[in-house]
Parts: sequence; structure tokens; C-alpha cells
Amino acid sequence: MSNTSRPPEKVFSSDNIAGASPAVMDALLAANAGAAIPYGGDELTARVRMRLCEVFERDVGVFLVPTGTAANALSLAAITPPWGAVLCHPASHINNDECGAPEFFMHGARLRLVDGADAKIDPVALDAVAGLKAGDVHSSQNTAVSITQATETGSVHSLDEIGQIGEICRRHALRLHMDGARFANALVSLGCTPAEMTWKAGVDVLSFGATKNGVLGAEAIVCFDRSIETELAFRRKRSGHLFSKMRLLSAQMSAYLEHDLWLANARQANAMARRLGTGLRALAGVEIMGRTEANILFCRLPQALIEGLLAEGFVFYHDRWGPGVVRLVTSWATTEADVDHLLARAQALLQ
Amino acid sequence: MSNTSRPPEKVFSSDNIAGASPAVMDALLAANAGAAIPYGGDELTARVRMRLCEVFERDVGVFLVPTGTAANALSLAAITPPWGAVLCHPASHINNDECGAPEFFMHGARLRLVDGADAKIDPVALDAVAGLKAGDVHSSQNTAVSITQATETGSVHSLDEIGQIGEICRRHALRLHMDGARFANALVSLGCTPAEMTWKAGVDVLSFGATKNGVLGAEAIVCFDRSIETELAFRRKRSGHLFSKMRLLSAQMSAYLEHDLWLANARQANAMARRLGTGLRALAGVEIMGRTEANILFCRLPQALIEGLLAEGFVFYHDRWGPGVVRLVTSWATTEADVDHLLARAQALLQ
Amino acid sequence: MSNTSRPPEKVFSSDNIAGASPAVMDALLAANAGAAIPYGGDELTARVRMRLCEVFERDVGVFLVPTGTAANALSLAAITPPWGAVLCHPASHINNDECGAPEFFMHGARLRLVDGADAKIDPVALDAVAGLKAGDVHSSQNTAVSITQATETGSVHSLDEIGQIGEICRRHALRLHMDGARFANALVSLGCTPAEMTWKAGVDVLSFGATKNGVLGAEAIVCFDRSIETELAFRRKRSGHLFSKMRLLSAQMSAYLEHDLWLANARQANAMARRLGTGLRALAGVEIMGRTEANILFCRLPQALIEGLLAEGFVFYHDRWGPGVVRLVTSWATTEADVDHLLARAQALLQ
Amino acid sequence: MSNTSRPPEKVFSSDNIAGASPAVMDALLAANAGAAIPYGGDELTARVRMRLCEVFERDVGVFLVPTGTAANALSLAAITPPWGAVLCHPASHINNDECGAPEFFMHGARLRLVDGADAKIDPVALDAVAGLKAGDVHSSQNTAVSITQATETGSVHSLDEIGQIGEICRRHALRLHMDGARFANALVSLGCTPAEMTWKAGVDVLSFGATKNGVLGAEAIVCFDRSIETELAFRRKRSGHLFSKMRLLSAQMSAYLEHDLWLANARQANAMARRLGTGLRALAGVEIMGRTEANILFCRLPQALIEGLLAEGFVFYHDRWGPGVVRLVTSWATTEADVDHLLARAQALLQ
Repeated sequence: MSNTSRPPEKVFSSDNIAGASPAVMDALLAANAGAAIPYGGDELTARVRMRLCEVFERDVGVFLVPTGTAANALSLAAITPPWGAVLCHPASHINNDECGAPEFFMHGARLRLVDGADAKIDPVALDAVAGLKAGDVHSSQNTAVSITQATETGSVHSLDEIGQIGEICRRHALRLHMDGARFANALVSLGCTPAEMTWKAGVDVLSFGATKNGVLGAEAIVCFDRSIETELAFRRKRSGHLFSKMRLLSAQMSAYLEHDLWLANARQANAMARRLGTGLRALAGVEIMGRTEANILFCRLPQALIEGLLAEGFVFYHDRWGPGVVRLVTSWATTEADVDHLLARAQALLQ
Repeated sequence: MSNTSRPPEKVFSSDNIAGASPAVMDALLAANAGAAIPYGGDELTARVRMRLCEVFERDVGVFLVPTGTAANALSLAAITPPWGAVLCHPASHINNDECGAPEFFMHGARLRLVDGADAKIDPVALDAVAGLKAGDVHSSQNTAVSITQATETGSVHSLDEIGQIGEICRRHALRLHMDGARFANALVSLGCTPAEMTWKAGVDVLSFGATKNGVLGAEAIVCFDRSIETELAFRRKRSGHLFSKMRLLSAQMSAYLEHDLWLANARQANAMARRLGTGLRALAGVEIMGRTEANILFCRLPQALIEGLLAEGFVFYHDRWGPGVVRLVTSWATTEADVDHLLARAQALLQ
Repeated sequence: MSNTSRPPEKVFSSDNIAGASPAVMDALLAANAGAAIPYGGDELTARVRMRLCEVFERDVGVFLVPTGTAANALSLAAITPPWGAVLCHPASHINNDECGAPEFFMHGARLRLVDGADAKIDPVALDAVAGLKAGDVHSSQNTAVSITQATETGSVHSLDEIGQIGEICRRHALRLHMDGARFANALVSLGCTPAEMTWKAGVDVLSFGATKNGVLGAEAIVCFDRSIETELAFRRKRSGHLFSKMRLLSAQMSAYLEHDLWLANARQANAMARRLGTGLRALAGVEIMGRTEANILFCRLPQALIEGLLAEGFVFYHDRWGPGVVRLVTSWATTEADVDHLLARAQALLQ
Repeated sequence: MSNTSRPPEKVFSSDNIAGASPAVMDALLAANAGAAIPYGGDELTARVRMRLCEVFERDVGVFLVPTGTAANALSLAAITPPWGAVLCHPASHINNDECGAPEFFMHGARLRLVDGADAKIDPVALDAVAGLKAGDVHSSQNTAVSITQATETGSVHSLDEIGQIGEICRRHALRLHMDGARFANALVSLGCTPAEMTWKAGVDVLSFGATKNGVLGAEAIVCFDRSIETELAFRRKRSGHLFSKMRLLSAQMSAYLEHDLWLANARQANAMARRLGTGLRALAGVEIMGRTEANILFCRLPQALIEGLLAEGFVFYHDRWGPGVVRLVTSWATTEADVDHLLARAQALLQ
């Protein structure tokens, strides 16, 4: 996409290995000129909020932070007390990859795991546990649910699935958080509107990711429940996530949202994952696992193929989910040439 | 400096209103190209650490974070237990401007105030309280001292003053943190080496600021006591301050340290503050307050002059420290033309 | 009072050196018999709440805990967020004697000191700072005030003084906590009703002390603002302060409140402090300091007298508040013989 | 045992429904007389520590606290950092019954569940996960293991099982905590020495329970690793668990340890559970579940029998573990008459 002349990219370990889209860097350069009001009082930051109000078709509160972990942990801290618990999937990022940031920000509230297929909470299981021990002073109280869209395994919740979970939350008086580190990938996969995928389905607060999809480091906490904004304002500052030169974040986010760059980037990443899947499926001894609905693909490869690809310099995770299981991740920067190169080398190695 | 053709800058409220130096933006653009190992495993991040080892003439641990509040709060959390207390000046940033971030990161350890002239802890007062209630289970225990270099009022600790405080810390088994949000401004003011101003004087951990002096958002926690690195590694992640695309921080910091940009920027900021001071001192009814040793100037202006300047669009803080007291802050981006314009308008208004 | 045949008590260091009143021990023995519903579901615990409703002439929420530190820290945690601040006097127990328990329970909210004569917050000073930096995201927000009745120096707030502070709280939307570790001593000193000294003057939540005045270990958090009871219920359990065999606390508290034992005990303690004051005032070279309105007396004694009394085995604090300053504390168990013995020895030593 | 003339006790819901042994109340009465040095400086508290040194055949640190939740949460906080994790069984009290107290005291460290039969961690499973993600900054780090002796289901770890877990801990540099809320019940069940069941098997810190076995409210944190005593001293005070009138706790604990009262009480409770088991096993349609090695018995009863017993006023938990599953708990105060009465009524109801 950006660098047509470069050699094929061999790193498929994560979407966080890519840089930012050129338009994002242009915006950063432009925003750097001259003086700006600090701490988010600048025009660019105001424009980001306006743009997100348009995107979500309603008034929303917006808090820019630099990382997805900060977005998730702050969001959860704003909707659950220290004696609360957040119901989430065992495979979720908040459970596995944040070194206890949710517990730190929530002052010791607990993550309580609810399993389900394809890295998605099973609504029936959720409904069964949501009200357990309510009012029992000996137990951390269920106060929130967090779902990931798209999930860590590349699957996407349907609108119906989100709506079911939203309805369960309403019934049990739980708040609903969505970890949208790959929000755009899920959105273009479903082909629905941002409003449909969030507040219309019952989401109270969203970690709106951008870092994995075309910026260097910027996420937006989007509040549909605007009563939590006071909590977020003080907690963001208190956790060191309020930038004095906010334009560093808002310029990235602004460019990300302009001209639907975020959607174009996500479409490219998703298309490259599908292209990978189609190509791999055609190879002997390769099994595609789960559902490749976004930009993550799980497959089972012959051990010799794994070793051959690694020996040629390809990079991917392969030792975490059982023998032969490989995860391949594409990004906005992945090109057809990158994908086709991997497929060609795999085919050659299998012969 | 950067924009010779722009109209004179009228905002003197803070050094955080300026953007980043052109060389920093160039480095960011260059670093954006291609894939990079995430979470600080990239070469650029390694180079930043090597460069800081050179700067400080010894092996140091380095943790990049986006804000000064994060650098301070993480540093303090790494050196004091929840039942500890950090001795600091009432005027310090950690006491006044971080919404309790130190207490959040330290899990409720306390800031204990020790006063002194020119926003600097009085060593005699420090020595008198450092050992109070040691071992008394009813009292949070003094475990650390934090000093600010340069201070919030623009004064600079002499090497002798830092050494005295370092010696008191050693005697009472307290760890010493330096908030160096304006480290470069202090360094060029003293004309000493970074080593002399830190570990040689007893500093254990430093918040090495860059954001106020030529980058958009990047600070380095520099550990002279390397035993605290494990704490910092996990606490940085856990607080959402570990960047996946670390190059966003390391590119800025790398450029900041290259070709002594950081020193050049600080010299410019300091020189402009001195130029302001010289010019203002010559005006009737103007009193220069405190010591303008870095890039902050406090003065007392006639009320009519304050109102006149504000009416003309100049921006500065003036209502916080008593009647007529004005704070003016310069930055790397402040030009002689900016200063001279303010001085000319002040002179005109006084007539 | 209890032990007429014992030798005179020489320990005047604190009211926590005494045991429990005989009636309290009788009640504990009686309550021990047979089975009881755990965790406060027993009748005795219900009776304590009913009795406190009568005492305070309104419906109140009651949470029994074993220590004053627990009562204070839990009360404050229920009324202030982690980004809040509690305004209190520098001499307060929460500031000096709880090893940061308030900060622990409040998850890092800050104590902000407001000085005043006789260990009481000066209402004018309080009004001046109460609204400072309200809404400023860079500063922990004032959310509560805590006063101590009777104070750590033995003075007592008048109803008018409490009312003034209550009115300031209302005006600035702050919650008001009263540390009543010596509530009974203050009450009998003022001769008012418990309602007048608390909710009628604006108090939202009270640490109702008993441990220092006739029980072995039991305090009640009394909620006039009943909206905080959910927070308290979970936080009490979560901090390990919910007793399974609650009768240990409720039997003590019940006996304390029966037949006005609490008032009788406080009257005895206060009377003995006054008797001490009257006797000491008559001695050459002795100066009574401050106001002996409860059961604590501060005085300045000749150094030789201090040393003489210590040599004879008397115990009191004398090295904390300046040269010659001595604190003497009486309790429900202090007898006229105890007081007269100290006075006689002092007189003898002065000759 | 204590009350031979009372009607048979029908409450078998928990061992916390009983009062304290007569000798404990006698000791409390005796300890109440006269003045005592506060905060644990008294002779009785020193004697408790000496006695526990004898019991455990080595020098130990001792911290008295009022509840098992406090003992567990403080112990865990002293051995794991906020970014750590404690491996424990899903059925453990710290996981199910403390409203997140461990997370509160550990400042957000995580409980990580390791399953196993009979409410005991499976050593093979433990060994498999103990070292996972060690050094991975994205994951809370395993730093401790907590086991319960006797378990929540009435089973008891053999010395061999504890030793195996201790060895795994040593190998992975994890600290080992034992929740001994029913320590005495396990000890007399195994017939070993306290040393064998703890530090000789690798236990670093023990919650030594007494409340469930003959006192009203007192537990001892026993430190075999004495390096954690400083942490515990400050954390106990900071959590409101340092009693000024410590004799309330130390008198109970002292009497509990005198004349092997603790062992006699545990033997009685265990014997009554066995008697219950023997009697129930003989009844048609009754199935004894799990292992009744201490004072807790799980069984499956015909639904009509459950309803019949409840209708007659018997109290026990029966709705938590599946259809027909009933938990019966005996205590030091349970008599043969109590047991035989229940058995007789059950037999009658079955006919």
C-alpha cells in the first residue's frame, strides 16, 4: 500500500508492527506548527470529538489516550467500583495481556471469566452467572461486562450477539464495555454502522482503537453513557494519560477519521487476511481454524512448514495454542505482494 | 527559531504550548517507515538507552513514557512502599499538578511537604524531619525525597544543594528522585555534566523530561539504581504506559538527544527568559521576582500593564500568586522577535 | 471506680490503657452462650442499631468495626472518590496516627490540611480553600471534610462551630465526617444531644467511638446519609472488618449504650481531667495549656518535676510538643485516688 | 460439651455459629483487669508469641488480627507485589468468600485458579502453570501459592501433598501461604506436628485460625519467613487491624493455646463430623460425598429428607452444590446429643 518498492514484508506476528498511514504523518506534521492550547483545549481535539459524534450519530464524550491498555483500564474503572467484578472472556486482552492494568485502575475489582466459542462470551452462560451472589457481601459484585470486537482470534460478534449481551446487561443492571482495539476491522466485516455496533446494542463505553489500524499511538475512549465523564477526566490525569501537547494524539486520530481512512485501512487488513486464508486453504496439509472475519487468521500447519518459514525469516506466533497452530495477522500496511510471497514460499516448502 | 516568517508569538503561559523541533518531526517520519518490533524491542529504542548511557557516563536503565506525570508517578512507585512517604516541596509538580497520580501509583503512600526558599527544599528542614517517626507503626514512613530541577519557579538547585540533599538521603536511608521535566534548562544553566547533576550527587532515579523542550510527548525514566528496573517494567505496562509502537516515543527521544538538540533548545529557552528579564527590568514599575535561572520568569507588573497586555492578546498566568504577580515562560520555540515584541508593547502601554 | 482496692494507677499516657467496664464484660459473657447467626444477622446486632437510632433520634445505618482507624478509614472511603481530597486538621488522628489508612482505604485520595486553634479547623480558612481548584483536572478535588470531636488536644467543638463547618460543606458540596473516638467525652462536655452534635449540624457520617471509653474494642460507623451503606457493607467485608461472630462487637456496644454507661464513663473521665487540672494549676511552676474540655490535659511542667514523676513510675507523653510540655489522659477507669496520688507526688517533688 | 442442659443444637450451617470456650472467656475476664500497655506491647501478647514459637518449634513472627479474611489478605499482601498473582484453588475462601479482600490488600494482584480434586490444588497442574509467562511484562507474574488446610470441603492435605507443593514453590521461586482457618482440625486429623504441617513442608506464612474453633474473634499471622515482618507491621496498622487494647485478641489466643485447648476443641469437632457421617451412611438413600477428614461433611440427601429437616428447624446449606447436596459443619461446641438428635430425626423422617 504505502511502500510499493520495498521487499515483501515477512512479519505477520501482529498488526502493531506497522507504522502509521502517510496521511496520519502528514497531519502530525501539520499539527506541529505553531502554538496550541495544552491539555486538549485545542481546536484539533475539539474536532476529533465532533467527528466521533458524527461517526456514532449522537453526542458522545471522548477521552484520547495513547494505548489500548489505558483505554480499557480507564473505561472499566469508570464503570465499576473496587468491590465489583467485570465479566469477560478467558481469551480477552484485559485478562491476558495487560499485566493486571484493569485491576490496578479499578483498585482491585476482579475479572470473572465466562467462556464461549470463538473467543466470544456465551450469552447463555453469561445470563446464568450475571446475577449470582448479587447483594452477597462476601463476594465481589458483578457490575460490568466487557466484550472484544473483533476478538483476539479474529472472530466478530454479530449485531444480534452484541444485542443479546446488551439485553442481559440491562436486565442485571450491568454496564457494558466494548474493547474495540480492532473496532474498524469488525465494523467493515459486519458492514453495519458504528451506532448499530455499539450504543444501539447496549454498549455504554467503547475503547475505540486506532493504533493497530494506521496510527502510531492513539485510542479514544468513547462514552455513550455521559455520566461517567467526570470519573474519566480525573482518572485519565491521575494515571498520567492526559497529554499536555494533546495534538500528538488528536492529530493522529483526526487524520484517522478523515476521508474514512480508518475504514479503508481495515478493509485492506481484512482483505489480506482473507487472501491468506484462501491461499493457505489450497495447500496440502494446511487447516484453517476458527473464523477469519477480521484481520487475524489461525491455522494448523505441518511442523516442517512452520520450521521452513521461520528459517526463511518469516515471523509469526506458533507455540502458544497447541502443536502446529499458527497465528497470522495482517494490517493496513500488508500488501497483496506480501501475502502472495508468503503463500509462494509455503507452497515451495511443501514440495 | 523554526518559523522566521510567522507573526510574533504572544503566548507565554507555558513551554507546553510549543510543538516539536523540526529534527524531531523528521526523525518521527523516518522511523515510521516499515515494520518494527513492538513494545520497545526495536533498534531505535535500544539506541536511546545507549545514548543516555553516554550522556550520563554510566550504565542506566531507561523506560520511555509519554508524560511527565507518568514518569514521576512510576519513578516514585518504584522506590517507595504503600506505607511510605515522599518528602517534597509544597510547590512541586507532584504535589500540585498531577491530581494525585503519585498516590495512585504508590497505592496510597503520602507526600509530606518540606518548605524552603525558591521552591527548593531547605536541607536543614529536611534533615530535621527525615528521621521523624522512623519505625513508628502509626505513621507512614519517610522512604524517599523528590526534588525538581529546574523548579516550578524557574530557580535551579546548585550542585552543592543537590549533594547536600543526597547526603541527607544516604544518612536516613531515603531514595532520591529528581523531577527533571526541565532537566536540560537546569543543566545548561549550571554548565555542569548530567552525571554531576544526578547520580554523582546522590540521585537514584530521574524523570528526564523532553516534552517541554522540543518534542511532542516523550519522557525517559532514567534508573541509576538498576535494582528498580523489574518494578518499573511491570508497573509501566500495568499503568498503560508501554507503547506497542514504541518508535513513537523513541524516535522523538532519539532526535532530541542527537547533535545536542536538547541542549541547544534549552539554551534558547533560557536565553529568551533572560532577555525578557533584562527588558522588563528596565521598565518603570516592573519588579523581577525570584531567580530567573531557567526558562521561567516571575515578575510584578502594574495592574494596568497586565490588563493592557491581555487586551492585546498576550497570554500568561497572572492571578495565582498575589496581586500583580505574572509568570512568563519561554520555550525552545520562543524567538528574540517574540520577546522584543512583548517588551515593545509593554513599553508602549506604560506610556 | 472498678477496682477500689488496687494501688493508684500511675499510667496517664492514654485512655486506651484501661480495660472494659464490668457491665461490658458481663454482656460479653452472656452473649457468648449458645449459637448465634453469624456476620451480624443476630438479634444483638439488630438491637445495637435500634439503640443507636434512639440515641440519634432518627433512622441510621450502623456498621460495627473493631478499631477507630477502621471506622475512620471506611467512613472516608465511602464518601470520597480516589481522585478526591479530605480537608482535615494537621493534629487529626487520620493525619498523624493511622499510618496512611485513609489513603489506603480511599485508594490514594489525599488529606489536605487546614489549620486552626485548639486542634480545630478554622472555619474562615476552610471556607477559603474549600472551593479551590474545583473542576481543575490537575488537582485532587476537595470532596469531604473530617473533624474530630473531642479533638486530640482535649478541646471540644461548640455546636456553633460544627454548624458553621457543616454549612460550609453544604455550600461547597463536601461531605462531612466526624471522628468521634471521644464522642461521649465531647457530648457530656457540651451537654447537648447526640443529634444536635451530628446530623443536625450537618454531619453525614460518624465514627462513634467506644474503645477509649469503656469497651475493649468496638466502634460503630453511624450513617446519617444512608446512601453510603452499600459502599460500607462491601468495603467492610473487603477490608477484613466483618466479624463472623459479630456478637463479640455487638455485645460490647450494646452494654456500652445500655443504662447510659457511655455517658457515665465519659463524665468520670472528664471529671478526673478537670480534677487534675485544678490540682496542677495550684502548683508552683505549672502552666495549664489549651482547653481541658474533655479527658485530655496539656500542661507545661518544670523539667525536674517531669523527671521526678517518671522516676517514680508515672507514665505519660512529654517529649513531642516542645520543652516541658506534658500530656495527661484520664479514662473511665481513672479514680480520684489515682489523680490525688499524682498531685500529691508532684507537690512533694516540687518541694 | 459446654452446655449439657441446653436443648439439642439444630444449627449445622457453620462452625462460626458457636461461641467461645469457657476457658477463653475466663481468660478475657482476667486480662481485662487493670491497665495494659496498648498496641501489643503488653505481656500477654508477648506470651502468645512465645507460645507459638514453642508450638512451631522455631522462632516465628506473630501478628494478631480479628478475622480470617484479614489474616489471609495481609499475609498475601506481604509476599506478593501488585503486579503479582497468587495461585489458588477455585474453592478457596480467598477466591469465594472475601469480597476481593486479597486484591484490595495486594493492590490489584490477581488470584489465578488451579483446580484439583477434593478442593486441593493438583500438584501436576500447579507445576504446569507455575512458570508460565515468567518475565513476560504483559502478564501478572506468579509470585505466590495459597493452600487451605483443612479445605473448604472438609478434606485435608497430606504432609506429602503439602511437601510436593512446597517443592514446586521452591523450584519456581514462589512464596507459599497456608490458610489455616481450620488449622487445628487438619492437624489432629493428620496427627502430625505443627512444624511438619507448615515450615518443614515449605510454608512461608500461615493464617493460624482460632475463631472457628473456640474463640470469638482472633487469628494469628505466623511468619516462618521473618523478612516479611516489617511489611506486616505497617500493613496491619494501615488496614485498621492493630488493636489498641490488644489484650482483647491476645487473651483469647493465649487461652486457646493453653492446655492444648485448641487441639481438644478440634478433636471434638472432627469426632462429631465423623459421628454424623457414620450415622448418615447407615440411612437409606443417603450418600456421603468426598472425604470427611475434618469437621465438614458433604452428603446427598433425598429431597424429602432435606425439606423435612428444614421444617423441623434444622439449619444447614443445601442449595449451592447441586440437587440434594447438603453441607453439615460441626464445631468444638457440637455434642453427641446434638448429632444423635439430628440422626434420630432423619431416621424418623425417612420412615
